[in-house]
Amino acid sequence: MSVTAAQGFRAAGATAGLKVSGASDVALVTNDGPDRHVAAVFTSNRVEAAPVTWSRQVVSDGRADAVFLNSGGANACTGARGFQDAHRTAELVAATLGVSATDVVVCSTGLIGEYLPMDRIEAGIRLTAAGLSAEAGQAAARAIMTTDSVPKEAVVTGDGWTVGGMAKGAGMLAPGLATMLCVLTTDAVADAADLDAALRAATATTFDRVDSDGCMSTNDTVVLLASGASGVRVEPVALTAALTRVCGDLSRQLVADAEGASHEIAVEVRSAATEADAVEVARSVTRSNLFKAAIFGADPNWGRVLAAVGTTTAAFDPALLDVEINGVQVCRAATVGDDRSLVDLTPREVRVVVDLHAGTATATVWTNDLTHDYVHENSAYSS
Amino acid sequence: MSVTAAQGFRAAGATAGLKVSGASDVALVTNDGPDRHVAAVFTSNRVEAAPVTWSRQVVSDGRADAVFLNSGGANACTGARGFQDAHRTAELVAATLGVSATDVVVCSTGLIGEYLPMDRIEAGIRLTAAGLSAEAGQAAARAIMTTDSVPKEAVVTGDGWTVGGMAKGAGMLAPGLATMLCVLTTDAVADAADLDAALRAATATTFDRVDSDGCMSTNDTVVLLASGASGVRVEPVALTAALTRVCGDLSRQLVADAEGASHEIAVEVRSAATEADAVEVARSVTRSNLFKAAIFGADPNWGRVLAAVGTTTAAFDPALLDVEINGVQVCRAATVGDDRSLVDLTPREVRVVVDLHAGTATATVWTNDLTHDYVHENSAYSS
Repeated sequence: MSVTAAQGFRAAGATAGLKVSGASDVALVTNDGPDRHVAAVFTSNRVEAAPVTWSRQVVSDGRADAVFLNSGGANACTGARGFQDAHRTAELVAATLGVSATDVVVCSTGLIGEYLPMDRIEAGIRLTAAGLSAEAGQAAARAIMTTDSVPKEAVVTGDGWTVGGMAKGAGMLAPGLATMLCVLTTDAVADAADLDAALRAATATTFDRVDSDGCMSTNDTVVLLASGASGVRVEPVALTAALTRVCGDLSRQLVADAEGASHEIAVEVRSAATEADAVEVARSVTRSNLFKAAIFGADPNWGRVLAAVGTTTAAFDPALLDVEINGVQVCRAATVGDDRSLVDLTPREVRVVVDLHAGTATATVWTNDLTHDYVHENSAYSS
Repeated sequence: MSVTAAQGFRAAGATAGLKVSGASDVALVTNDGPDRHVAAVFTSNRVEAAPVTWSRQVVSDGRADAVFLNSGGANACTGARGFQDAHRTAELVAATLGVSATDVVVCSTGLIGEYLPMDRIEAGIRLTAAGLSAEAGQAAARAIMTTDSVPKEAVVTGDGWTVGGMAKGAGMLAPGLATMLCVLTTDAVADAADLDAALRAATATTFDRVDSDGCMSTNDTVVLLASGASGVRVEPVALTAALTRVCGDLSRQLVADAEGASHEIAVEVRSAATEADAVEVARSVTRSNLFKAAIFGADPNWGRVLAAVGTTTAAFDPALLDVEINGVQVCRAATVGDDRSLVDLTPREVRVVVDLHAGTATATVWTNDLTHDYVHENSAYSS
């Protein structure tokens, strides 16, 4: 169901021939109203793809009727021609649906530095527009996959209203800069400003805390469409909570499906002076290649955790640091703790807890291990 | 010759049994004067090893008589006992040489989180003190190796004076957090303050611009001893130039010997607004796992270069960025440039040039590619 779980939405997935594999590669999601509110967050990479530049303009007035997405090509670093292609895509979708091009969000994912084959995109628009249905959520979710092994969908229902969503993220450890695309839909009645605030709050503690390899895509986009079709007005707090659950669910699915990974690693930082400190420390650990390679090797190498913590500017006394790996306190007060051979790293899920003894804030960042398959995926094929 | 090339220095390397392999693992360098000046730079990791904490104190008054180094154990994250062991090491060396413990620098490299076997360290001190000679520079350089395949030595001679040095850095891409230890010696006559300034200037543009995997060791130390034995007073500019040549030579040797690496990559950033901007951009590229994996795969993936550039705060217009890989301008004005298939990535040396079109500053940062062997080295053995 995903993006078509809420009332007022239709979707479609189709094969336009962008992927060599012949798998479906274009998707369309439409908002049939009565509201056509939109909110979105985009990559903060200054080298942004043409569809991101285009879509920023589209959502700036808070209204959008549709989202068109393609896999098989990022349309990034494609200059003026790339922007014209994104614009042209929106115009073709708009003409087909009878809406304004300035209300059509466009998302792309794939190889950087290649132009989109616009004849195939055009054919894909016709196919998806013809296939729109309230039952095609999963077909759309499949069409945006790149090296994802399964489509990612999530739904949360409120009292008479629903939030649904789909995401792709070849995930964290796969080729293509791990572009993350996500379309969320809700039939809740809410103001555009509340939707925007709720989306930003939800992504800040979910998608923003999944860190594959420290590499930021040129194409990342999370877009939320609101139809108001339930007739139920939802308060900001409830809306934020529902969006956070859906985004959290989807972001965990990205980590779980990360190609090449053999472990999902949650790095939890406790007793930080501020949440920002906790996030900085957790992110430093999740970006340590040495730590991530150690986890791949089932080695509870807490020294590499401390070394990563030590490079941050967070408030803490280095002499007080504790580290726990899968329940074993391997490091106590920055020195040797319990026997590291007690740590069982055979399960796919790994939990590392760093205690800063500096306050009461906490945060968790998710990542994967650094494996032979990661290197293979990212070196053997141009992507 | 290395650390014994300049007049007034003796050195020794010996086997204390710290390494399972049975290779030599302790080294001693002594300054026989007449000057006993010292300057040093240490890791900026807040989780610093006990010998770093000890040695910071030793060099704070600008005087040192000797440097004792061990491989086979980092003595990091070893708490009060670790500090006592570093202190005890200095006392034993001092007693043997007839100098003050507060004038003995101590350096360690190896696994974090294990205590040093002090009986073996003590035996190693006796062996090295007994073996001191003006011809044992290379024996010392061999004894500090961990996964280095060759000892690293360099010598630059001035008009009647000399700077020599040895370094170990399993390098960049090897186990053990890539601890970098370097001992430099000179017989130039110079003030302690000038020596300190010259060392900081030299390391800032050499060792500080070699970035293996973004992981900062708890033990990194570069120490310079000056004997004044040549009787030649050397001006700061000439001293800085000579030190920069020796440090540059040694840092390039570290990159060349990086285990697991198949390419040495120089990322040169041109036309930056400031040198700091140039360094920030170059470092962002050298820390991109996706870029480094692409080079391993002989894929001139300039999109991954631009994506890394885009995450920085340096001054530039994203639409103006150029990227050249091994002489082929694969990206011009942030879009598709010359045919990427023209790029030859079979040589071990790779040069990536990023032109920011934002000023006149430039900087180069060196790294290696991300390979299967890197993952193997850092996951298959606890280190």
